[in-house]
Amino acid sequence: MSTPITPEALASKVGDAMFAADVASKDTMGMELLLCEPGHARMRMQVREFHLNGHGICHGGFIFTLADSTFAFACNSHNKNAVAAAASIEFLKPALLGDVLTSTGVEQVLIGRHGVYDMTVRNQHDDVIALFRGKSAQIAGNVVNL
Amino acid sequence: MSTPITPEALASKVGDAMFAADVASKDTMGMELLLCEPGHARMRMQVREFHLNGHGICHGGFIFTLADSTFAFACNSHNKNAVAAAASIEFLKPALLGDVLTSTGVEQVLIGRHGVYDMTVRNQHDDVIALFRGKSAQIAGNVVNL
Amino acid sequence: MSTPITPEALASKVGDAMFAADVASKDTMGMELLLCEPGHARMRMQVREFHLNGHGICHGGFIFTLADSTFAFACNSHNKNAVAAAASIEFLKPALLGDVLTSTGVEQVLIGRHGVYDMTVRNQHDDVIALFRGKSAQIAGNVVNL
Amino acid sequence: MSTPITPEALASKVGDAMFAADVASKDTMGMELLLCEPGHARMRMQVREFHLNGHGICHGGFIFTLADSTFAFACNSHNKNAVAAAASIEFLKPALLGDVLTSTGVEQVLIGRHGVYDMTVRNQHDDVIALFRGKSAQIAGNVVNL
Repeated sequence: MSTPITPEALASKVGDAMFAADVASKDTMGMELLLCEPGHARMRMQVREFHLNGHGICHGGFIFTLADSTFAFACNSHNKNAVAAAASIEFLKPALLGDVLTSTGVEQVLIGRHGVYDMTVRNQHDDVIALFRGKSAQIAGNVVNL
Repeated sequence: MSTPITPEALASKVGDAMFAADVASKDTMGMELLLCEPGHARMRMQVREFHLNGHGICHGGFIFTLADSTFAFACNSHNKNAVAAAASIEFLKPALLGDVLTSTGVEQVLIGRHGVYDMTVRNQHDDVIALFRGKSAQIAGNVVNL
Repeated sequence: MSTPITPEALASKVGDAMFAADVASKDTMGMELLLCEPGHARMRMQVREFHLNGHGICHGGFIFTLADSTFAFACNSHNKNAVAAAASIEFLKPALLGDVLTSTGVEQVLIGRHGVYDMTVRNQHDDVIALFRGKSAQIAGNVVNL
Repeated sequence: MSTPITPEALASKVGDAMFAADVASKDTMGMELLLCEPGHARMRMQVREFHLNGHGICHGGFIFTLADSTFAFACNSHNKNAVAAAASIEFLKPALLGDVLTSTGVEQVLIGRHGVYDMTVRNQHDDVIALFRGKSAQIAGNVVNL
């Protein structure tokens, strides 16, 4: 008889499985997944040449994408498939070439199938550069089969 | 004595100059700029393999990025430098590999230095897949020098 | 055999029934319902002494409430019970004592049970003072029984 | 030579002065100000008959108004005049007649003149019924003269 998996071990398994398949986050954007726990996630991305917009700073869409990926890991961490229904972001400071951005996400509420998650994106000086709030909806199915 | 440039010609010039320098939108994401008029812009992006997330659909962050770029062209179209202060997005339908997404942006209000712009992202079936609202703030300087 | 009711007549009936029972909007806030059509609504409210906050201007929450009521009429106009799931507002200009505010709402999309509605609040000079976007979810039941 | 006032004492003074003049929050809505500290505030409101909408539940606009007032106290607590520029709210549970709602607000960031504040509204069972995020802008002047 097998020992039931802990929520922590399950979230970690979910994170690994999702990240391995996530071409957009891993390959296209160059993110790393630092942590995937129940209702929490943390990702990191260094701003590279290909992230820069016409003003020579990191495209705001890519800061959003970093937070949105973090959101996806946090809201799927319970191993119930969840999708983003909506999100909002406040852009507080620009991100420059070479900056190392860390996005930390936390579940604020999960009521039935609907959750609200807050992501904070900081640079290597620990300045908050963006605040992101995402609304998720769980759908049928699981991320990993146990 | 030179003829003054029309707002339409100026917006077009701004669009060309910004897009030429926008590595993120043009090269990394594969967007095209279809239109840049005073307070309006339109962009297009086909969903490719590198846009896909762990669920095998277009990363929501890249749908946001398409709308955010459109927003940037619309809010800079008056040739006054403007930056995104905040944005929100509603995700209505997924975007699949091969889908051709068109984002159309319109200025709702511009009061002093602050503007509100609405972007609608549709796929090739004319389904609305996302609604984006962005808040801009004009800063010092011009996009192009006349 | 009775003639089936038109969508327009139904929306009007829904508006009348909802407004008659809406103590908050009608009595407490002093709103009028000007129009309830399928996916559209319009309401009006004059700023009175009891609407003023500590700065002597209309409380932003009451501008939101005017838009939120308009949203409720627009998203219930199809005679399927709908509730607000989320909303955002941009405050663009203050509303002063005596100002007459008109809020106009329009359905942007209705996909399955989920809708997005945009409200524009203007004063008597036709200045836009606030932009509101609401997300609705239909629930079981009808507003009026035919 | 007078002792300089502490930030805590100043915030408390600001709260008292603003609340005394706030007809909308105090008289029209029936709120109480429980706390005004630097970057923090807490308010309470019991749902009464006059708060009810056509569905017989507390009007969502009044839940917003409770959070928006809390936001106003939190973002003015440094005794620099600040106004709400934008806000968003997630409605998670209805508020019923007799419910006692407590709204707690916290400053997330204050960068230059711009701040982001998060309000959590709970009922007497400690259920989160709404999450509110507000963006403030400081303007000229002080709330109280020292």
